[in-house]
Amino acid sequence: MTRISRRGESMQASPIRKLIPLANAAKKKGKHVYHLNIGQPDIETPALFFDAIEHHREPVLAYAPSEGLEVTRRSFAKYYQQHGMDFDTDEIIVTNGGSEAILFALLALCDTDDEIIVPEPFYTNYNSFASAADVKICALTTRAEDGFHLPSFEAIERKINPRTRAILLSNPGNPTGVVYTDEEMEMLADLAIKHDLVIIADEVYREFVYGDTACRSFFQIDRIRDRVVMVDSISKRYSACGARIGLIASKDKVFMETVLKLCQGRLCVPTLEQIGAAALIDTPPSYFEKVREEYRARRDIVFSALSEMEGVICREPQGAFYVIAKLPVKDGEDFVRFLISDFDIDQETTLLAPAEGFYATPGLGKDEVRISYCLKVEDCAKAMRIMKEGLKTYCTRFPQKMPVNA
Amino acid sequence: MTRISRRGESMQASPIRKLIPLANAAKKKGKHVYHLNIGQPDIETPALFFDAIEHHREPVLAYAPSEGLEVTRRSFAKYYQQHGMDFDTDEIIVTNGGSEAILFALLALCDTDDEIIVPEPFYTNYNSFASAADVKICALTTRAEDGFHLPSFEAIERKINPRTRAILLSNPGNPTGVVYTDEEMEMLADLAIKHDLVIIADEVYREFVYGDTACRSFFQIDRIRDRVVMVDSISKRYSACGARIGLIASKDKVFMETVLKLCQGRLCVPTLEQIGAAALIDTPPSYFEKVREEYRARRDIVFSALSEMEGVICREPQGAFYVIAKLPVKDGEDFVRFLISDFDIDQETTLLAPAEGFYATPGLGKDEVRISYCLKVEDCAKAMRIMKEGLKTYCTRFPQKMPVNA
Repeated sequence: MTRISRRGESMQASPIRKLIPLANAAKKKGKHVYHLNIGQPDIETPALFFDAIEHHREPVLAYAPSEGLEVTRRSFAKYYQQHGMDFDTDEIIVTNGGSEAILFALLALCDTDDEIIVPEPFYTNYNSFASAADVKICALTTRAEDGFHLPSFEAIERKINPRTRAILLSNPGNPTGVVYTDEEMEMLADLAIKHDLVIIADEVYREFVYGDTACRSFFQIDRIRDRVVMVDSISKRYSACGARIGLIASKDKVFMETVLKLCQGRLCVPTLEQIGAAALIDTPPSYFEKVREEYRARRDIVFSALSEMEGVICREPQGAFYVIAKLPVKDGEDFVRFLISDFDIDQETTLLAPAEGFYATPGLGKDEVRISYCLKVEDCAKAMRIMKEGLKTYCTRFPQKMPVNA
Repeated sequence: MTRISRRGESMQASPIRKLIPLANAAKKKGKHVYHLNIGQPDIETPALFFDAIEHHREPVLAYAPSEGLEVTRRSFAKYYQQHGMDFDTDEIIVTNGGSEAILFALLALCDTDDEIIVPEPFYTNYNSFASAADVKICALTTRAEDGFHLPSFEAIERKINPRTRAILLSNPGNPTGVVYTDEEMEMLADLAIKHDLVIIADEVYREFVYGDTACRSFFQIDRIRDRVVMVDSISKRYSACGARIGLIASKDKVFMETVLKLCQGRLCVPTLEQIGAAALIDTPPSYFEKVREEYRARRDIVFSALSEMEGVICREPQGAFYVIAKLPVKDGEDFVRFLISDFDIDQETTLLAPAEGFYATPGLGKDEVRISYCLKVEDCAKAMRIMKEGLKTYCTRFPQKMPVNA
């Protein structure tokens, strides 16, 4: 054919998925692989979802409204009410996962070469959406040593220029596990007001917080309610990643009209999945309590294992189900490849995600990996033992692959 | 909030959907509305689709592969084999409807301000995807009087410049009903080769042709097999618009790798809908024969009714289920609004789509409407009677709204 677009060429392969062929090769050799590379929960999807779909038939599977089924939007409004947020149904539009919500937010707010500020490391697919929209990500570096908390008001302000349109961030954070403090959120609110920015708040991990207080939404800061765009999804909340049901919510009518035009272009979101999603509103609170306890136990296992590994730096993650660990190696991806291809304990091994692809600043994250603790406690424990022994073996076998000052 | 992006502002509201509020108002007054505005077939979705989903449960509704389920891609490969086209499964990627396939094709091939040539009038959402991708549509005007067939090689060539990357067109054509002749397709192939262009062939209406010969695919022109991108969908074929299952197919590995990166960004297409779509491959040929006969009868009713309306210009459409009619009025949208809001026969009225939004060239299509003949024969007949009487009444009541030379 002919040439590929520059934006197409510049997109990176997913650091979460690109090493899956190595995992498949390991499986072919008869090894069991613990997948810590991907945020695919192993928690059961509530039966409510399948029940609702099973009983749904229509003679003609017709287009749904572009903005989403009324029943689905109402169920989301009800969900937010339960979390202390008031939305009319017309302030909510159903999207193809949180992914489409982010893409549409960027397209509605930014023109080619406009900029958004994103704390790094960040969810790697933000890169994909920014490339697709031809929007520049201006990365705000945060560090493992600081638990990935934000730099100062002034440091962030230095990143802002006339082309800056928004701050995009996930809270609780993927891949860092950070939960922003009230002070950090208020600081971002101040910045947004002072510099006329929008906050695109990716809050899909709202339920996954392990401290004493619930995660606050940017929508709960009254003075910026008109400049927050919320991105949300049922994927993690109800362990329903394969449903691809997300939403975009905003109090700004003109913004929502623009998003609706984008939605009309792609016509609609699948009907059946919307019906299943709407039914999930009846999931009892006990479900979330149990899930949270389960993830807290996983987090504790993973974090304490990492803490015991020599030369590994990480802070206790407070939310989501990820942790970024800085390793005493020069090249995290090389170590990840070693683990999956050349190391096992009793024919068991693990796949991690190299963290470099979660950073926009070249070179950063090269010695880091992201661990997704989506497996049950005993599997997390086994995978951590493999990682620990693997790291020892790697450092012993390849001393030249350790940094000079380690 | 703050300002909206220029591309967001420049997107038009869907000419197919924007007048639906008027239809809803008519319904509130107790009127029955025949919807000729939208390509929403009333044909039953084959039960195979729902059967397959009903029997599908999994403990965790996990992410599907970004490129689509193997079973779904294989079913598409089998479908093409039945239509004389050979595709490996890795030459097919499942998308969120044909819509996403078009958007991804543009993103993978074009950078900001690159151009694509599109015969106009064209499927109005091409505008949305081009706006989202910041790609310029260079419209190639075709006319009702010519049955919307293409202009000459030289006329098309004059539209090509160094930024031209592709020719995008639907065949059979939405909204025109045109089916391109062998000569037209060969001419486009020559142009593509001569000017190093890609042909993005939107062939979602393949089964809907009413002449004696099947619709040829651009993939069946051997010398351009490596520069064709096929966009396809189950929406119209199986009357399954609400499933949002489409695909992109190409023989070009680098292009497909780029599309895969875009797919990885949005993670996957819903699992259940893919399973339903895969089951549809077992739809018997008799289904399509019956559907085709039904649509041919509808086409005949609509076309003969239009032919009898004074001052209306249109040629017999050969495919899809649309026809563009040029009316003896100054402003087609004004007439469409009159019909739906101020005219009825025995409390029944009809909604058409103003055609101006299907053109990129300002002013064109202003005196035209698109009619989608997706309703059963007797409903099409009633709607045509309403249109005919409505047009007479409109022209009598508002002589100033007729063109001077009419």
